[in-house]
Amino acid sequence: MDTTEMRHRVAAARVAHLATTAADGRPHIVPICFALDEQTLYFAVDAKPKRTTNLKRLRNIAANPAVSILVDHYEDDWDKLWWVRLDGRARLVTEDAEVERALHQLAQRYAPYRKTIPTGPVVAVAIEGMVGWVAS
Amino acid sequence: MDTTEMRHRVAAARVAHLATTAADGRPHIVPICFALDEQTLYFAVDAKPKRTTNLKRLRNIAANPAVSILVDHYEDDWDKLWWVRLDGRARLVTEDAEVERALHQLAQRYAPYRKTIPTGPVVAVAIEGMVGWVAS
Repeated sequence: MDTTEMRHRVAAARVAHLATTAADGRPHIVPICFALDEQTLYFAVDAKPKRTTNLKRLRNIAANPAVSILVDHYEDDWDKLWWVRLDGRARLVTEDAEVERALHQLAQRYAPYRKTIPTGPVVAVAIEGMVGWVAS
Repeated sequence: MDTTEMRHRVAAARVAHLATTAADGRPHIVPICFALDEQTLYFAVDAKPKRTTNLKRLRNIAANPAVSILVDHYEDDWDKLWWVRLDGRARLVTEDAEVERALHQLAQRYAPYRKTIPTGPVVAVAIEGMVGWVAS
Protein backbone atom coordinates (compact mmCIF):
# COMPACT_ATOMS: atom_id res chain seq x y z
CA MET A 1 0.00 0.00 0.00
CA ASP A 2 1.56 3.31 -1.03
CA THR A 3 1.16 6.62 0.81
CA THR A 4 -1.62 7.84 -1.49
CA GLU A 5 -3.63 4.67 -0.90
CA MET A 6 -3.04 4.83 2.87
CA ARG A 7 -4.15 8.48 3.00
CA HIS A 8 -7.22 7.65 0.93
CA ARG A 9 -8.25 4.87 3.32
CA VAL A 10 -7.67 7.04 6.39
CA ALA A 11 -9.58 9.98 4.89
CA ALA A 12 -12.55 7.71 4.07
CA ALA A 13 -12.74 6.14 7.55
CA ARG A 14 -15.36 7.39 10.00
CA VAL A 15 -13.62 6.30 13.20
CA ALA A 16 -10.05 5.70 14.33
CA HIS A 17 -8.48 4.39 17.51
CA LEU A 18 -6.02 6.49 19.48
CA ALA A 19 -3.40 5.02 21.81
CA THR A 20 -1.59 7.23 24.29
CA THR A 21 0.80 6.46 27.13
CA ALA A 22 0.15 7.64 30.69
CA ALA A 23 2.89 9.14 32.85
CA ASP A 24 3.20 5.76 34.61
CA GLY A 25 3.82 4.00 31.28
CA ARG A 26 0.39 2.37 30.97
CA PRO A 27 -1.15 2.51 27.50
CA HIS A 28 -4.65 3.92 27.04
CA ILE A 29 -6.99 3.60 24.08
CA VAL A 30 -10.08 5.44 22.90
CA PRO A 31 -12.08 5.71 19.67
CA ILE A 32 -11.85 9.10 17.95
CA CYS A 33 -13.66 10.97 15.22
CA PHE A 34 -11.11 12.94 13.25
CA ALA A 35 -10.25 15.06 10.24
CA LEU A 36 -7.08 14.65 8.20
CA ASP A 37 -5.45 17.88 6.97
CA GLU A 38 -2.24 17.23 5.04
CA GLN A 39 0.28 16.01 7.66
CA THR A 40 -1.97 16.77 10.63
CA LEU A 41 -4.84 14.79 12.11
CA TYR A 42 -7.32 16.70 14.27
CA PHE A 43 -9.77 15.51 16.87
CA ALA A 44 -11.86 17.37 19.43
CA VAL A 45 -13.27 16.72 22.86
CA ASP A 46 -16.95 17.31 22.38
CA ALA A 47 -19.49 19.18 24.44
CA LYS A 48 -21.10 16.27 26.24
CA PRO A 49 -20.24 15.82 29.92
CA LYS A 50 -17.20 13.59 30.11
CA ARG A 51 -15.94 11.35 32.84
CA THR A 52 -12.36 11.27 34.02
CA THR A 53 -11.48 8.43 31.66
CA ASN A 54 -12.29 10.58 28.65
CA LEU A 55 -9.96 13.34 29.71
CA LYS A 56 -7.19 10.85 30.38
CA ARG A 57 -6.17 11.11 26.73
CA LEU A 58 -5.39 14.80 27.32
CA ARG A 59 -3.44 14.18 30.52
CA ASN A 60 -1.47 11.47 28.76
CA ILE A 61 -0.66 13.73 25.81
CA ALA A 62 0.56 16.45 28.18
CA ALA A 63 2.87 13.93 29.87
CA ASN A 64 3.92 12.13 26.67
CA PRO A 65 2.99 13.56 23.25
CA ALA A 66 3.74 10.31 21.38
CA VAL A 67 0.52 8.79 20.02
CA SER A 68 -0.38 5.93 17.74
CA ILE A 69 -3.58 5.99 15.66
CA LEU A 70 -5.09 3.05 13.84
CA VAL A 71 -7.68 2.96 11.08
CA ASP A 72 -8.69 -0.56 10.18
CA HIS A 73 -11.26 -2.77 8.56
CA TYR A 74 -12.51 -6.05 9.99
CA GLU A 75 -14.73 -8.70 8.52
CA ASP A 76 -14.88 -12.44 9.00
CA ASP A 77 -13.35 -12.98 5.56
CA TRP A 78 -9.77 -12.36 6.61
CA ASP A 79 -8.67 -11.85 3.00
CA LYS A 80 -10.42 -8.47 3.25
CA LEU A 81 -8.58 -7.21 6.33
CA TRP A 82 -6.48 -4.07 6.20
CA TRP A 83 -5.16 -1.41 8.51
CA VAL A 84 -3.24 1.84 8.40
CA ARG A 85 -1.32 3.08 11.41
CA LEU A 86 -0.22 6.68 11.94
CA ASP A 87 2.42 7.48 14.52
CA GLY A 88 2.94 11.04 15.58
CA ARG A 89 3.13 13.72 18.21
CA ALA A 90 0.06 15.31 19.71
CA ARG A 91 -0.38 18.87 20.97
CA LEU A 92 -3.29 20.95 22.18
CA VAL A 93 -4.24 23.54 19.59
CA THR A 94 -4.08 26.99 21.17
CA GLU A 95 -4.22 29.35 18.19
CA ASP A 96 -7.81 30.45 17.52
CA ALA A 97 -7.48 30.33 13.72
CA GLU A 98 -6.24 26.74 13.82
CA VAL A 99 -8.99 25.71 16.27
CA GLU A 100 -11.58 27.17 13.92
CA ARG A 101 -10.09 25.48 10.87
CA ALA A 102 -10.00 22.13 12.65
CA LEU A 103 -13.58 22.46 13.92
CA HIS A 104 -14.71 23.41 10.43
CA GLN A 105 -13.11 20.28 8.98
CA LEU A 106 -14.62 18.10 11.72
CA ALA A 107 -18.06 19.64 11.12
CA GLN A 108 -17.76 18.92 7.39
CA ARG A 109 -17.20 15.23 8.14
CA TYR A 110 -19.63 14.68 11.04
CA ALA A 111 -23.26 15.83 11.14
CA PRO A 112 -23.45 15.86 14.99
CA TYR A 113 -20.58 18.40 15.00
CA ARG A 114 -22.64 20.62 12.70
CA LYS A 115 -25.46 20.60 15.25
CA THR A 116 -23.25 20.98 18.33
CA ILE A 117 -19.82 22.50 17.93
CA PRO A 118 -17.32 20.77 20.24
CA THR A 119 -16.41 23.05 23.11
CA GLY A 120 -13.59 20.98 24.51
CA PRO A 121 -9.95 21.24 23.47
CA VAL A 122 -8.86 20.45 19.93
CA VAL A 123 -5.85 18.17 19.57
CA ALA A 124 -3.52 18.18 16.57
CA VAL A 125 -1.39 15.15 15.80
CA ALA A 126 1.65 15.80 13.60
CA ILE A 127 1.97 12.62 11.57
CA GLU A 128 5.56 11.40 11.59
CA GLY A 129 5.04 7.96 10.11
CA MET A 130 2.40 5.95 8.32
CA VAL A 131 2.41 2.20 7.73
CA GLY A 132 -0.24 0.05 6.15
CA TRP A 133 -1.06 -3.61 5.74
CA VAL A 134 -3.51 -5.43 3.51
CA ALA A 135 -4.29 -9.13 3.78
CA SER A 136 -4.19 -9.88 0.08
CA MET B 1 -23.33 -0.55 31.89
CA ASP B 2 -22.77 -3.28 34.47
CA THR B 3 -20.07 -5.96 34.32
CA THR B 4 -22.40 -8.60 32.87
CA GLU B 5 -23.40 -6.25 30.05
CA MET B 6 -19.78 -5.25 29.39
CA ARG B 7 -18.67 -8.91 29.25
CA HIS B 8 -21.56 -9.70 26.93
CA ARG B 9 -20.58 -6.95 24.50
CA VAL B 10 -16.91 -7.94 24.56
CA ALA B 11 -17.73 -11.65 24.05
CA ALA B 12 -19.96 -10.79 21.06
CA ALA B 13 -17.36 -8.58 19.34
CA ARG B 14 -15.31 -9.97 16.45
CA VAL B 15 -12.38 -7.60 16.73
CA ALA B 16 -10.71 -5.55 19.44
CA HIS B 17 -7.89 -3.03 19.49
CA LEU B 18 -4.80 -3.58 21.62
CA ALA B 19 -2.58 -0.77 22.87
CA THR B 20 0.87 -1.52 24.25
CA THR B 21 3.76 0.72 25.29
CA ALA B 22 7.25 0.34 23.83
CA ALA B 23 10.37 0.46 25.99
CA ASP B 24 10.88 4.08 24.85
CA GLY B 25 7.38 5.02 26.06
CA ARG B 26 5.74 5.24 22.64
CA PRO B 27 2.27 3.73 22.41
CA HIS B 28 1.51 1.14 19.74
CA ILE B 29 -1.84 -0.12 18.50
CA VAL B 30 -3.01 -3.17 16.52
CA PRO B 31 -6.33 -4.91 15.84
CA ILE B 32 -6.67 -8.33 17.46
CA CYS B 33 -8.94 -11.33 17.20
CA PHE B 34 -9.46 -12.73 20.65
CA ALA B 35 -11.26 -15.12 22.97
CA LEU B 36 -12.52 -14.18 26.42
CA ASP B 37 -12.16 -16.86 29.11
CA GLU B 38 -13.37 -15.66 32.51
CA GLN B 39 -10.82 -13.04 33.62
CA THR B 40 -8.38 -13.75 30.79
CA LEU B 41 -8.39 -12.55 27.19
CA TYR B 42 -6.34 -14.58 24.70
CA PHE B 43 -4.97 -13.68 21.31
CA ALA B 44 -2.50 -15.42 19.03
CA VAL B 45 0.05 -14.44 16.45
CA ASP B 46 -1.05 -16.34 13.40
CA ALA B 47 0.87 -18.35 10.85
CA LYS B 48 1.12 -15.76 8.08
CA PRO B 49 4.51 -14.14 7.53
CA LYS B 50 4.62 -11.01 9.65
CA ARG B 51 6.66 -7.89 9.37
CA THR B 52 8.53 -6.30 12.23
CA THR B 53 5.59 -4.05 13.14
CA ASN B 54 3.45 -7.05 13.90
CA LEU B 55 5.90 -8.49 16.36
CA LYS B 56 6.31 -5.15 18.06
CA ARG B 57 3.33 -5.94 20.26
CA LEU B 58 5.32 -8.88 21.68
CA ARG B 59 8.48 -6.85 22.25
CA ASN B 60 6.40 -4.16 23.96
CA ILE B 61 4.69 -6.68 26.23
CA ALA B 62 8.08 -8.13 27.24
CA ALA B 63 9.29 -4.63 28.16
CA ASN B 64 6.00 -3.46 29.72
CA PRO B 65 3.17 -5.94 30.35
CA ALA B 66 0.53 -3.22 30.83
CA VAL B 67 -1.99 -3.29 27.97
CA SER B 68 -5.27 -1.58 27.17
CA ILE B 69 -7.88 -3.26 24.97
CA LEU B 70 -10.90 -1.58 23.45
CA VAL B 71 -14.03 -3.08 21.98
CA ASP B 72 -16.30 -0.46 20.47
CA HIS B 73 -19.13 0.26 18.11
CA TYR B 74 -19.25 3.16 15.68
CA GLU B 75 -22.02 4.44 13.49
CA ASP B 76 -22.90 7.90 12.25
CA ASP B 77 -25.85 8.05 14.64
CA TRP B 78 -23.82 8.97 17.71
CA ASP B 79 -26.67 7.98 20.02
CA LYS B 80 -25.71 4.38 19.20
CA LEU B 81 -22.06 4.65 20.17
CA TRP B 82 -20.60 2.48 22.92
CA TRP B 83 -17.28 1.11 24.03
CA VAL B 84 -15.83 -1.22 26.62
CA ARG B 85 -12.20 -0.93 27.70
CA LEU B 86 -10.25 -3.68 29.43
CA ASP B 87 -7.01 -2.85 31.17
CA GLY B 88 -4.69 -5.63 32.20
CA ARG B 89 -1.34 -7.32 32.18
CA ALA B 90 -0.14 -9.44 29.29
CA ARG B 91 2.13 -12.48 29.36
CA LEU B 92 3.25 -15.04 26.81
CA VAL B 93 1.55 -18.37 27.47
CA THR B 94 4.22 -21.04 27.94
CA GLU B 95 2.29 -23.98 29.39
CA ASP B 96 1.20 -26.37 26.61
CA ALA B 97 -2.22 -27.11 28.13
CA GLU B 98 -3.06 -23.41 28.34
CA VAL B 99 -1.84 -22.79 24.77
CA GLU B 100 -4.09 -25.60 23.55
CA ARG B 101 -7.09 -24.34 25.49
CA ALA B 102 -6.61 -20.81 24.15
CA LEU B 103 -6.18 -22.02 20.55
CA HIS B 104 -9.29 -24.15 20.92
CA GLN B 105 -11.30 -21.13 22.07
CA LEU B 106 -9.92 -18.99 19.25
CA ALA B 107 -10.77 -21.70 16.70
CA GLN B 108 -14.32 -21.88 18.03
CA ARG B 109 -14.75 -18.18 17.36
CA TYR B 110 -12.88 -17.76 14.06
CA ALA B 111 -13.26 -20.02 11.02
CA PRO B 112 -9.80 -19.13 9.58
CA TYR B 113 -8.24 -20.46 12.81
CA ARG B 114 -10.05 -23.76 12.25
CA LYS B 115 -8.41 -24.05 8.83
CA THR B 116 -4.96 -22.86 9.93
CA ILE B 117 -3.98 -23.16 13.56
CA PRO B 118 -1.89 -20.15 14.63
CA THR B 119 1.72 -21.18 15.08
CA GLY B 120 2.95 -17.98 16.69
CA PRO B 121 2.95 -17.25 20.40
CA VAL B 122 -0.29 -17.08 22.37
CA VAL B 123 -0.69 -14.07 24.66
CA ALA B 124 -2.86 -14.04 27.78
CA VAL B 125 -4.11 -10.77 29.21
CA ALA B 126 -5.16 -10.88 32.86
CA ILE B 127 -8.03 -8.41 33.03
CA GLU B 128 -7.59 -6.06 35.98
CA GLY B 129 -10.24 -3.52 35.14
CA MET B 130 -13.16 -3.03 32.81
CA VAL B 131 -14.98 0.21 32.08
CA GLY B 132 -17.78 0.86 29.66
CA TRP B 133 -19.58 3.78 28.11
CA VAL B 134 -22.83 4.05 26.17
CA ALA B 135 -24.01 7.22 24.45
CA SER B 136 -27.62 7.00 25.57
